[in-house]
Amino acid sequence: KADILSKQKHAKYVYTFGNGKADGDRSMKILLGGKGAGLAEMSALGLPVPPGFTITTQVCTWFTNNVGEYPPNLDVQVTESIAAIEKITATRFGDPLRPLLLSVRSGSRVSMPGMMDTVLNLGLNDRTVQGLASDSEDPRFAYDSYRRFIQMFADVVMGVPHHHFEHILDQHKRARSFHLDTDLSAQDWQQIISQYKIKIHSEAGHDFPQDPRTQLWHSIAAVFRSWSNARAVTYRKLQNIPNDWGTAVNVQAMVFGNMGESSATGVAFTRNPATGDNALYGEYLVNAQGEDVVAGIRTPQQITIAGKVANRSNLPAMEEVMPSMFHELNAIRHTLEEHYSDMQDIEFTIQRGKLYILQTRAGKRTARAALKIACEMVEEGLITEDEAVMRVDPSSLNQLLHPRIDPTAERQVLAEGLAASPGAASGHIVFSADEAERLAQSGEKAILCRTETSPEDIHGMNAAVGIVTSRGGMTSHAAVVARGMGRACVAGASNVNIDYNANIMEVGGKILQEGDIVTIDGGSGEVMLGEVPTIEPELSGDFSRLMGWADKRRKLGVLVNADTPEDCRKALEFGAEGIGLCRTEHMFFEGVRIVAMREMILATNVAERRKALRKVLPMQRDDFAEIFRIMKGRPVTIRLLDPPLHEFLPHTEAEMHVVSAAAGLSLDYVREQVIRLRETNPMLGHRGCRVGITYPEVYEMQTRAILEAGVIIGRETGVNVEVEIMVPFVGVEAELKIVKECIDKVAKEVLVNGEKVHYVVGTMIELPRAALNAGKIAKQAHFFSFGTNDLTQMTFGLSRDDAGSFLPTYEKRGIIEADPFVHLDEEGVGELMQLAVERGRKTRADLKVCVCGEHGGDAKSVIFCHKLGLDCVSCSPYRVPIARLAAAHAALSSGL
Amino acid sequence: KADILSKQKHAKYVYTFGNGKADGDRSMKILLGGKGAGLAEMSALGLPVPPGFTITTQVCTWFTNNVGEYPPNLDVQVTESIAAIEKITATRFGDPLRPLLLSVRSGSRVSMPGMMDTVLNLGLNDRTVQGLASDSEDPRFAYDSYRRFIQMFADVVMGVPHHHFEHILDQHKRARSFHLDTDLSAQDWQQIISQYKIKIHSEAGHDFPQDPRTQLWHSIAAVFRSWSNARAVTYRKLQNIPNDWGTAVNVQAMVFGNMGESSATGVAFTRNPATGDNALYGEYLVNAQGEDVVAGIRTPQQITIAGKVANRSNLPAMEEVMPSMFHELNAIRHTLEEHYSDMQDIEFTIQRGKLYILQTRAGKRTARAALKIACEMVEEGLITEDEAVMRVDPSSLNQLLHPRIDPTAERQVLAEGLAASPGAASGHIVFSADEAERLAQSGEKAILCRTETSPEDIHGMNAAVGIVTSRGGMTSHAAVVARGMGRACVAGASNVNIDYNANIMEVGGKILQEGDIVTIDGGSGEVMLGEVPTIEPELSGDFSRLMGWADKRRKLGVLVNADTPEDCRKALEFGAEGIGLCRTEHMFFEGVRIVAMREMILATNVAERRKALRKVLPMQRDDFAEIFRIMKGRPVTIRLLDPPLHEFLPHTEAEMHVVSAAAGLSLDYVREQVIRLRETNPMLGHRGCRVGITYPEVYEMQTRAILEAGVIIGRETGVNVEVEIMVPFVGVEAELKIVKECIDKVAKEVLVNGEKVHYVVGTMIELPRAALNAGKIAKQAHFFSFGTNDLTQMTFGLSRDDAGSFLPTYEKRGIIEADPFVHLDEEGVGELMQLAVERGRKTRADLKVCVCGEHGGDAKSVIFCHKLGLDCVSCSPYRVPIARLAAAHAALSSGL
Ligand SMILES: [Mg+2]
Ligand SMILES: [Mg+2]
Repeated sequence: KADILSKQKHAKYVYTFGNGKADGDRSMKILLGGKGAGLAEMSALGLPVPPGFTITTQVCTWFTNNVGEYPPNLDVQVTESIAAIEKITATRFGDPLRPLLLSVRSGSRVSMPGMMDTVLNLGLNDRTVQGLASDSEDPRFAYDSYRRFIQMFADVVMGVPHHHFEHILDQHKRARSFHLDTDLSAQDWQQIISQYKIKIHSEAGHDFPQDPRTQLWHSIAAVFRSWSNARAVTYRKLQNIPNDWGTAVNVQAMVFGNMGESSATGVAFTRNPATGDNALYGEYLVNAQGEDVVAGIRTPQQITIAGKVANRSNLPAMEEVMPSMFHELNAIRHTLEEHYSDMQDIEFTIQRGKLYILQTRAGKRTARAALKIACEMVEEGLITEDEAVMRVDPSSLNQLLHPRIDPTAERQVLAEGLAASPGAASGHIVFSADEAERLAQSGEKAILCRTETSPEDIHGMNAAVGIVTSRGGMTSHAAVVARGMGRACVAGASNVNIDYNANIMEVGGKILQEGDIVTIDGGSGEVMLGEVPTIEPELSGDFSRLMGWADKRRKLGVLVNADTPEDCRKALEFGAEGIGLCRTEHMFFEGVRIVAMREMILATNVAERRKALRKVLPMQRDDFAEIFRIMKGRPVTIRLLDPPLHEFLPHTEAEMHVVSAAAGLSLDYVREQVIRLRETNPMLGHRGCRVGITYPEVYEMQTRAILEAGVIIGRETGVNVEVEIMVPFVGVEAELKIVKECIDKVAKEVLVNGEKVHYVVGTMIELPRAALNAGKIAKQAHFFSFGTNDLTQMTFGLSRDDAGSFLPTYEKRGIIEADPFVHLDEEGVGELMQLAVERGRKTRADLKVCVCGEHGGDAKSVIFCHKLGLDCVSCSPYRVPIARLAAAHAALSSGL
Repeated sequence: KADILSKQKHAKYVYTFGNGKADGDRSMKILLGGKGAGLAEMSALGLPVPPGFTITTQVCTWFTNNVGEYPPNLDVQVTESIAAIEKITATRFGDPLRPLLLSVRSGSRVSMPGMMDTVLNLGLNDRTVQGLASDSEDPRFAYDSYRRFIQMFADVVMGVPHHHFEHILDQHKRARSFHLDTDLSAQDWQQIISQYKIKIHSEAGHDFPQDPRTQLWHSIAAVFRSWSNARAVTYRKLQNIPNDWGTAVNVQAMVFGNMGESSATGVAFTRNPATGDNALYGEYLVNAQGEDVVAGIRTPQQITIAGKVANRSNLPAMEEVMPSMFHELNAIRHTLEEHYSDMQDIEFTIQRGKLYILQTRAGKRTARAALKIACEMVEEGLITEDEAVMRVDPSSLNQLLHPRIDPTAERQVLAEGLAASPGAASGHIVFSADEAERLAQSGEKAILCRTETSPEDIHGMNAAVGIVTSRGGMTSHAAVVARGMGRACVAGASNVNIDYNANIMEVGGKILQEGDIVTIDGGSGEVMLGEVPTIEPELSGDFSRLMGWADKRRKLGVLVNADTPEDCRKALEFGAEGIGLCRTEHMFFEGVRIVAMREMILATNVAERRKALRKVLPMQRDDFAEIFRIMKGRPVTIRLLDPPLHEFLPHTEAEMHVVSAAAGLSLDYVREQVIRLRETNPMLGHRGCRVGITYPEVYEMQTRAILEAGVIIGRETGVNVEVEIMVPFVGVEAELKIVKECIDKVAKEVLVNGEKVHYVVGTMIELPRAALNAGKIAKQAHFFSFGTNDLTQMTFGLSRDDAGSFLPTYEKRGIIEADPFVHLDEEGVGELMQLAVERGRKTRADLKVCVCGEHGGDAKSVIFCHKLGLDCVSCSPYRVPIARLAAAHAALSSGL
């Protein structure tokens, strides 16, 4: 009775599952982690799950905050849960005859493949190993399992690295002239175990523990600790996973895939994760433990015959070798899909002809597969259109939209591997993650080539444009991570031989040095010499169907940042509704224009400035006319000249000579002026509307070019041109007022004789002061467009050009959550945006507010923009579909 | 009866005064302007004020907003008021026998000397002039008055410039061989008047109007229009006077100071405006109209004998020539001072032995005079200590605190003039306001030398460090304006001959070219050749008395920005309570230190960086120790290294060579690194705590130097050192957390064996993001200090180094009200500060908040800081008294 009372005082920290029952269910991912919730759900569904229990993520947080301590009563709950497993399995933990053996696995809210530690075969010791030997009737297996456990435990718990044990094993094999592990007998393993123990004592300073409970508590602690290891922290930072989520620990009765030829282990997807095809897809290994598949050490076999053909595998498929197991697995696939309404990624083990499911979770998939699965599941009645839209990660569309290898291009294929992650990429080969990162930082593209990758390589994989491995399958570390990151990846290209010491790679007799250029096609598995031409992707019917659903749901308009005819056309193809930012500076940099621009800057009086600008006018008018023509009456927002005059200055003597001749100014004068006009901090200098106010002729000319082009195209097409003239870098209401007056004056001159161009004037909000004074500025502005690049620079006091010397350190050390130029800084820049929206709309209720910085194409930032109640986002052409889908996600999430 | 009803429907636009009565009083400055309120008050007081009326400032605003229209019923009110004057003066407007003559003068809320237009002798025409002639029994005077009126009216109302009339007059005098105006007879003036009229017709296209009412309404309109003329707008911008205040118009019966030798006109101060001495002080001209004194065309005579002696005048004083008038004036002086409780500046006219007061207003005074008058009036019981504190303009203290000529220095005096505005200044002579401005913009000091100055020269006087005129007295334009601006001024240096055409100045036979250097002493009236050494001012007892009163009243602490022993000592002298900002970068730039610093930056590893920093440690420790020693236990806030690494890079080959040798690095490597480390926008670059985080060794060394110095001085003096360690350029809480941990770690190492140094860690708030995130940052910070320079740069996106290319245009065109680096931008930067204070104190109620940008010494900004509820301001040593007094003003104003 006292016991019951004390139990009631404590929270529930442990959830059991097994035998068709479970304490938890799939809704409890936050508490039980993904794996724990899945095991509970499957167990309750009656699927064959080995019994076990889950220690909650709360315990991880407790453990982290209280330096390795556990909450009270946890030990009691664990002991009771072990008793429950013992009952189901008819074994006992530590029993020398029928020992209960356990696995201890991490499982956080979202999958973090390979980041944290695992211990298998726990419960084995010098006595219980004999019980396993007699119970399994396979002493060789029993001692092999024991030595695997010792090795894993020593590594994970005691900090004695693998290589010590591999060295002992290698020496033993060499002494006996064995080649394969399977050549070793039980006696061999016993000898090796003795040596392992000695090594552990000398390395760790104490003995490998024989007591199963000691083994268990140490392993639980090790898994909790592994939540905070360096690579897990890095991974979370890359994936934007908060550190305080914590991991659960799953303790489960062991099942063995390595109990001989009727045993196996594997990983399967309920649909093809690369193509989305509606068929079981996966790999397995006969007589192996689960981790062997993921580790990519042995090349696995396909589960289906179709998969075997597609992957050009010459190993038999499970469908052929174990047909009944295959059919059972295929039945479970349907059960799971109907139950979860999503494609699942499952781990299974077959122990002497009995199938066990060890994990299920939503399967990662390529963008193409995600689209296809989402569309087909709507057809199959499994999900709604809303759900389909939410199933596709907006950022993943990147994979679909980027170029692939031109099939007609000449190519010299060096190697073929698995098409592990789609996309084509060219770059310089490098052999280490650090070198990939270095190259990326210096603006070069890297192809990371490794025998196989490991979690230590994450940063390099992120920095590289493509990844090649010589070993491992479609579910190897390299393949899974590359798909997640949207990097092109060719895995298991076995004729690639990498020599890390010599920094070379031999491919079919050819030697490639570090820095040589290759092209890889992650859609075909080919590695090619040099840079091979690529072509634009054709988008599948699934794409336009899903984007159609997304468009119906989103509230945000999606515009494009474009200033060339090519970009405009591309953007229309990708569904842009207009131009949100047409920069005009490029129109000043080309050919003869830059000379005229320089003449303008160096002119000694207004008349000369006008003369120089007159040369640019017709060219700029033609540029605008062509853009209006392509956009066919859709709104076009044109930003008046923005960059600092500094950027237009001639640099070289030759350039100065050209300007001096063109402008009829002495070379000395030009030199003097160039020195005078150079700026210390051009980003904060004579730019934007400051130029438009001090040299009003520039904006006059631009306005004239815009409106005259509008008149021309209006006449040509019979459709009035809609143009929004956007004034950059406004900080004070009076600036915009002056520029607006100048624009209106020119408009009066141009729009005579009933010519109609519908123009409005608005401003960029890209200075903190402009955001704060948005109420006043809105008096002059028909619309706002956040220039989030500049706004981020000013708010953080951070120059994008110079941040490279410390920003990577800041990201690595978690000082900032993410690069604020990639994802909007919601706490700083975001608050200024919110203020600006509120204040601007207070002055002018119908104020149109948009974003036109890079963030307009970042899914996370687009969702934030939706929350702020903006009218539209504008981004580069390739990001338009991302923005459309992200906007739909935002609308659907906020509607829920 | 209908008349009364219609009157009641209209607002009162016209206020009459005269004959011991008045509609208005001195409290009505906003409506009546300063002059109008003063005339009303004096009239009600029974002082001899010619009768008249004031048209309110509201009418000016109406007139400006309605393009020259007047509010209804104004004409009726004006007509009635003229009738009232007619009654008092027993004259009639337009009457050919006894004509009423009027003056029409502007009068705004604050004095704008000479900025707006005036019309005198209004009401004269071809018929009334005959009445004036017979009435005054002086036809010469009458026709002279008529031609003066015509000339003034033509200029002000009809836009026909003076020089046309001067030309006619000169020709007439030459033809008759006259030298002085007084040589001309009534007939001469009649002839000249005829020519004036012809000239007016040919220049203006129509005739000079004969109808007095037409003359009046045109003149009223001209005065209202003159509120918006270019020089008035410029003046208001310089003085921060809003454009919408408007001016009143004062219409008053004429009295004539030019009715012969018993007539005079003058300007007097009730105390000496330069020294503050309690005696009547002023100048007058016999037989002259009022404007002649102010214009500085004739050199005026002193009112008192004492003044005559002091100014080395050889003209008789009024006290001698017109003793009864003098005594009457002196009696009025006492009446006014007792009534107004302040020193008054009065204008008077004596018409044939009868004294009239035409204006009274608070007199402008030097800072020294302001101090003396304030202190003495407290003694006299005229004002309270609070009022005394409010009577001294904080910014004016600048005049007292700056150097004066070293009396022992050798000096070659070129010229002597009037000591018109105190202070000593050396600079390059220039002969035009534009050139003074140009020089100032290029960072040079200018001494503006003019025959006399006029309102057109205001911008040049503001830009110059000193002003010299060859004509005019102590109340000439140059003298009045220079005192107001705190510029040194020598006026009426009559042996100076300026040749504007040749751009030279001849002084006692010596020719000075534009650009030559002179030194002027505005306290002695001397102009000296070359640069003469100056010494620091000794501050009078009045200064410390008044500052004592101020200190008792202020709530804001006043600290100093100082990083040298000299600055620290100077600051203590000026009353600083501690150091609010000790920059440490200067400590890295000197001599061998810069080499060590460069070694540090270029080092290839941490060990080498530490080695380089070890060289700097003892030097920096000594610097801090000396500062602690001087500050004697007062709080010292030390900012860790802030500037971008960029600034420390070697520039020249020679510098690179030195570093390469010192660090044992190849010259090529050094060159490469220098290129690599250069920044495009260093202001937004690798600086502040970003350096402290990427190169923690730097802040470790600095912390060690600070704390070790603290230990040394603690031991030496027995007083614990109080040090606040300030971390610059923080944008994210984690930055401050990391740096604080580093500081605490070093403190643990240094402060062993019970050594005590009281240190706390705080941060600069100088990034918009920091202001927005102040709530989080305050978790790590014991104090905030606003770096308003950087905060202004970031909020405006404005680099101080580069703003010169457009900021002057912005100021000139009124796009910004004031240079935001001079006066805090309350609408932008100020709002961020307010947010930061609120949020910071929400996290940490006792958070100390200070300002340490340049604004800490700007009176206007200090008042804003008081309103924000800051704890202290910190500024450069010379500005400490300004901040103390401004803080007292703020406390007193907010208490009222
Ligand atoms: Mg921008
Ligand atoms: Mg700063």
